[in-house]
Amino acid sequence: MPKPTFHERHLGVEMSSRYEIRLSGSGGQGLILMGIILAEAIGIYDGKFVAQTQSYGPEARGGSSKSEVIVSDEEIDYPKAIKLDLLLAMNQKSCDEFYPDLKPEGLLIVDSTFVTQVPNPKAFQIPFTRIAREKFNREVVANIIALGALSQLTPVVSSKATESAVLARVPKGTEKLNRDALKAGLSAARRAKKDWMKLEVPPDTPKEDVLDS
Amino acid sequence: MPKPTFHERHLGVEMSSRYEIRLSGSGGQGLILMGIILAEAIGIYDGKFVAQTQSYGPEARGGSSKSEVIVSDEEIDYPKAIKLDLLLAMNQKSCDEFYPDLKPEGLLIVDSTFVTQVPNPKAFQIPFTRIAREKFNREVVANIIALGALSQLTPVVSSKATESAVLARVPKGTEKLNRDALKAGLSAARRAKKDWMKLEVPPDTPKEDVLDS
Repeated sequence: MPKPTFHERHLGVEMSSRYEIRLSGSGGQGLILMGIILAEAIGIYDGKFVAQTQSYGPEARGGSSKSEVIVSDEEIDYPKAIKLDLLLAMNQKSCDEFYPDLKPEGLLIVDSTFVTQVPNPKAFQIPFTRIAREKFNREVVANIIALGALSQLTPVVSSKATESAVLARVPKGTEKLNRDALKAGLSAARRAKKDWMKLEVPPDTPKEDVLDS
Repeated sequence: MPKPTFHERHLGVEMSSRYEIRLSGSGGQGLILMGIILAEAIGIYDGKFVAQTQSYGPEARGGSSKSEVIVSDEEIDYPKAIKLDLLLAMNQKSCDEFYPDLKPEGLLIVDSTFVTQVPNPKAFQIPFTRIAREKFNREVVANIIALGALSQLTPVVSSKATESAVLARVPKGTEKLNRDALKAGLSAARRAKKDWMKLEVPPDTPKEDVLDS
């Protein structure tokens, strides 16, 4: 039997027909734009059903921000996340608040610039904001770097569709900056995935496989 | 008995606790940004519960665009519109497609630059795009003009909150243009409301009232 791929191991043998994503952090981190770009990448360029939502309540003034993207093979009746398949937490508060909503096998990605207490050692910890500062001298591209990483870490969106959607949304004249930011996110995610693979203990490799190799 | 106000007549004596808005038109008319600004005006600046959603399906490549805003006094369990209280149609196709989703007493606002066949004579017909072209030489502000009109025509959002939300979202350096666009929308709506009042036949004014005046 072939070894399961990263995504098969990570997401179970096949992707369920509904996939729920929450992007969270503080206001000003560009999470709403990120949600829109991600939804357009999946819906317009990858051709699936997508609903993208942001909600505001009395806590909205507190400066927290979240954006949800629901993906399905069928029309979406209920566009709100129930149990998350993917949580991106760009600050500690949102990580603490939303981690309980993540499925046990769900994917947690944190901005390790701000999230220092990670509830699960298997989380992908990537310093999006630090990369944005150090590599681009522009903190505002942290969301686009995160988007690049996300397109590498989840099979729900392709990197190509992500790039098309980013370029269609960002202001004219910033295309190169944003394309480079996406690429930086992709590379950072590739490195994080390698580290993740080391953490992962091969679950129950049968003896003969070991001998075969 | 005092004469009912415009809003009481228009929306029933009191606003229901759930209010559903759909903004629709073609891609490129800025409806998603408009939905976000409207949701932020109501949720952050006016302090109600708001959920703002865009959905994409196989038709997304067709160039249609819609954005929904649900407002409630309570937390929103179901963030998708069921029966619309307000429909903004920025082109003919979206007007034809979504008018059946409007409640009988719902508010229809159309961009009369593009919507020439209006399904209900009581619709507010305002040439948002023509105003944007002629007054500002910038078609892209049609959505902000429409937002100004909307804040005048529905009690669900205040003009003050709308202005704060617009100024927080638009690119630096465009504040004056956008503030002027909002104002142009407000004035256009005031004129449209006057015309609307003329159309409105006083429903069942009792004889004595007529004699009193």
